[in-house]
Amino acid sequence: MDPDAVAKAFVEHYYTTFDANRAGLANLYQDGSMLTFEGQKIQGSQSIVAKLTSLPFQQCQHSITTVDCQPSGAGGMLVFVSGTLQLAGEQHALKFSQVIIFSLTSLFISIF
Amino acid sequence: MDPDAVAKAFVEHYYTTFDANRAGLANLYQDGSMLTFEGQKIQGSQSIVAKLTSLPFQQCQHSITTVDCQPSGAGGMLVFVSGTLQLAGEQHALKFSQVIIFSLTSLFISIF
Repeated sequence: MDPDAVAKAFVEHYYTTFDANRAGLANLYQDGSMLTFEGQKIQGSQSIVAKLTSLPFQQCQHSITTVDCQPSGAGGMLVFVSGTLQLAGEQHALKFSQVIIFSLTSLFISIF
Repeated sequence: MDPDAVAKAFVEHYYTTFDANRAGLANLYQDGSMLTFEGQKIQGSQSIVAKLTSLPFQQCQHSITTVDCQPSGAGGMLVFVSGTLQLAGEQHALKFSQVIIFSLTSLFISIF
């Protein structure tokens, strides 16, 4: 399967889960995963999901603008995503970008 | 040494070199390095520098706004940089973002 297609499918799955059931992202992280969120480093699936579910908004809708990816060592994929984030009740969407390194079975690293 | 400080020093060195002597970036890439530039994948130090030196501007000045980094497997560092790029003769600076994975001795991967 084309690695780019895998990366795009993963990104779609990640943000669909984020928007529909944020706690479900726990299945995509491992204990060794790290999230850097606006400079704050958070280690492990449980802490990462605690951070993501504590963000000061409930309903949200990600729209993806670009997905750039290339192979990263040890069977991983490095993905750079940019897009917009529409929050319920807000007139204007926010711009966001995120970097994800994942393997076919797990999500290692994520930077907002 | 603090890994974050190493990453910031590397980023500063990368963009100082880019702005002062773009061809000198060849020393920071290897044959196994890959650059994804606006979706185009370019492999190897020589091809990467050929791409960067062929960009349709000569003098430029990068200003860094954010540097986020975290350890990446096998002794590497994953760095996410955002900032602005001022081109000679242009009134407004362009926004840019770049992802870099590097080790202490070499630059593996770079995404614009």
